[in-house]
Amino acid sequence: MTRTTSQLIADRTRLMGPNVSTFYDEPVHFVKGEGVWLWDADGRKYLDCYNNVPHVGHCNPRVVDAICRQASTLNTHTRYLHDGILDYIERLTGTMDASLDTAILTCTGSEANDIALRMAEAVTGKRGIIATDATYHGNTSLVSQLSKSNVPTVGFGLGQYFRFVDAPDSYRRPDPDGTGFAAKVAAQIDSLEQDGTGFAALVVCPYFLNEGFPDNPDGWLKPVADAVRKAGGMLICDEVQSGFGRTGTHLWAHEKMGVVPDIMVLGKPMANGHPVGGVVANRDIVKAFRSGYRYFNTFGGNPVSCAAAMAVLEEIETQNLVANANTVGDHARSRLTALAAKHEVIGDVRGSGLIFGAELVTDRTTKAPASDLTDRIINEMRHRGIIHSKLGRHKNTLKIRPPMPFSIENADLLFDTLDDVLTKANK
Amino acid sequence: MTRTTSQLIADRTRLMGPNVSTFYDEPVHFVKGEGVWLWDADGRKYLDCYNNVPHVGHCNPRVVDAICRQASTLNTHTRYLHDGILDYIERLTGTMDASLDTAILTCTGSEANDIALRMAEAVTGKRGIIATDATYHGNTSLVSQLSKSNVPTVGFGLGQYFRFVDAPDSYRRPDPDGTGFAAKVAAQIDSLEQDGTGFAALVVCPYFLNEGFPDNPDGWLKPVADAVRKAGGMLICDEVQSGFGRTGTHLWAHEKMGVVPDIMVLGKPMANGHPVGGVVANRDIVKAFRSGYRYFNTFGGNPVSCAAAMAVLEEIETQNLVANANTVGDHARSRLTALAAKHEVIGDVRGSGLIFGAELVTDRTTKAPASDLTDRIINEMRHRGIIHSKLGRHKNTLKIRPPMPFSIENADLLFDTLDDVLTKANK
Repeated sequence: MTRTTSQLIADRTRLMGPNVSTFYDEPVHFVKGEGVWLWDADGRKYLDCYNNVPHVGHCNPRVVDAICRQASTLNTHTRYLHDGILDYIERLTGTMDASLDTAILTCTGSEANDIALRMAEAVTGKRGIIATDATYHGNTSLVSQLSKSNVPTVGFGLGQYFRFVDAPDSYRRPDPDGTGFAAKVAAQIDSLEQDGTGFAALVVCPYFLNEGFPDNPDGWLKPVADAVRKAGGMLICDEVQSGFGRTGTHLWAHEKMGVVPDIMVLGKPMANGHPVGGVVANRDIVKAFRSGYRYFNTFGGNPVSCAAAMAVLEEIETQNLVANANTVGDHARSRLTALAAKHEVIGDVRGSGLIFGAELVTDRTTKAPASDLTDRIINEMRHRGIIHSKLGRHKNTLKIRPPMPFSIENADLLFDTLDDVLTKANK
Repeated sequence: MTRTTSQLIADRTRLMGPNVSTFYDEPVHFVKGEGVWLWDADGRKYLDCYNNVPHVGHCNPRVVDAICRQASTLNTHTRYLHDGILDYIERLTGTMDASLDTAILTCTGSEANDIALRMAEAVTGKRGIIATDATYHGNTSLVSQLSKSNVPTVGFGLGQYFRFVDAPDSYRRPDPDGTGFAAKVAAQIDSLEQDGTGFAALVVCPYFLNEGFPDNPDGWLKPVADAVRKAGGMLICDEVQSGFGRTGTHLWAHEKMGVVPDIMVLGKPMANGHPVGGVVANRDIVKAFRSGYRYFNTFGGNPVSCAAAMAVLEEIETQNLVANANTVGDHARSRLTALAAKHEVIGDVRGSGLIFGAELVTDRTTKAPASDLTDRIINEMRHRGIIHSKLGRHKNTLKIRPPMPFSIENADLLFDTLDDVLTKANK
């Protein structure tokens, strides 16, 4: 059936329960997507500057064709043999350091992170996990403990194993070579070792997307990786948001940050919205996890999921989407920098490739966050047909993370609109 | 690429790691599926008497069409409004008791069980979970603790919260009214309360499929449900295998067993192989879980998943698949009973609807399990083009659980072949 917006909202509460989040003061009802465009139920067109799940574009024909072809041919599980999963893992791991040679495919990044933490426990024999205090890695009982910003009220006492460090913040607390972050992690490692929990792993998004993508120079993770290895722990890089070329300069953000993770986690954009996630690690780490425990995931690595995921890799390559992210990202940051010269409220411009944005402040000297204004701008942009969001500890950073086929023309429409919205917001 | 069977096996170990299970001594390489049929890479046709994930048949046209149509129109997440998820939850919960009125959609049954256990913790404030000693409910850190038959070697100490009771076994330990099972659960509840853990929930598949689908009469779960409620705990029915009409007499096996669960978990067949799972509960239970914790699942309840899941419900209804399961199941059990009169090795015939099978024994008096013979039969049947498996504590129960469009003619082919294989196995 077709509901009005108010009926949709009422039925969500009735059928899905309370506290189910939506975006915007007036949630949007999308009915169609194509490339970087979305259409609402009234036929209005929106430029999608936010959604990373449709990585190679909404309803990408190559991905849709792959799904339809395989779904109408065979969909089964990995207890039978199939070329699709092997072709995909071969191609995926072929883009990474030689040590990242073995994969477990799941349906979500949450499932993948849940495995990654157990891999760390299996290898180290310890349970202490460190993350930043402004991140998100998923929703299982174990993995949801990593989100200090949305602490679950239940979770079988798992909180005891988690420690948090201040999220990097290049604007307010510069740490240009990453040694400050490394020292904070090392202090938590000591604390875990001293209280008997022991240190198993540090989990980070290598480009710290949820934390507000601080302006960390290339190689910035090296000191913390050294601290983790020195303590005998595992470095888990959650590339759910940062991977598949998002940062423009590299296919994987850990390469940009100068490290090779022990365990790498993939999710959201992996199959353009078809539910696929995965863990990649060295075969010895996978073996430690699988030793004596037959992990099986019914839908994980099924032929349709692998066909969709393979089509994403092919599309990234044939459409040169990593280079596009780099080119358009550079243009976007120069447009944002120009806007900063005009609008006092823009305190900082950051990003790499197709993750970029600006931190809005009420005062450039005190750097006081303009959180309310940011919220108003996001909502006004939505009414002007531009979809993006905000993030960071103060919810004052514009989060712009469009599908990878985003063009210079798209970026210009985004910033022309933002210029106008900022001008009117200051009147 | 197209690999030979030996190349597939070698590449699996290389790319997926060790201990990744396959079926059969000589794993099968399927390349095509349609209805109840599968084809291997050599063009050989197999009758699928095992796979429940393709619930309405391999590559069911209605489901494939729904996936292709929605995947080429829009695929996004629940932070925007969409009719698809609401239409689906409305229709799904409309098939259940009025108390089961609210749903959370996930990508897997594992994710759904992980939520269900946290719901029980949220409502009761306690953490003790009881399950049978021969079951399986999924693969997350928390949920994998429910599988005593495949105990994970790692899992963040979560094993402390789980207690096990003997799986029901109508053949070896008759308990015709379920009071014996209820007493065992009550004893574990007492133990949990006494050791300070407290009792949160009992998790059962209402038809005990992994345990070997004992011949429990209708209403059998009533005594244990009473024991659970008396102790203030939650009854979680995992209908991943038993639901969607599998047992033939009811759409949901808990109805057959005379109870209404507090929390119901769905998975595998829900969208015919497209990764969809879900939890259904009363809105107060959902509210307790969501209180203060914004559970969000990126892929959960996306428009494509909901379209696939809706097509499954439509297909079950329009093709009268529950009635078909009942009719064909009755025929299957009468054929199996006839085979038992001829083959001494068949010790017990069990099942309801399209989950049925026989327990094989070396001696009908001692009921000694014929586990090795069962394994040989499964493998011989596979070479004759019939796909099924075995289960139960002694791995001596033929597990026959075909796609729901399975016909009387299909059943006859299965049992004519089984008759021949049993005859030759005894020579």
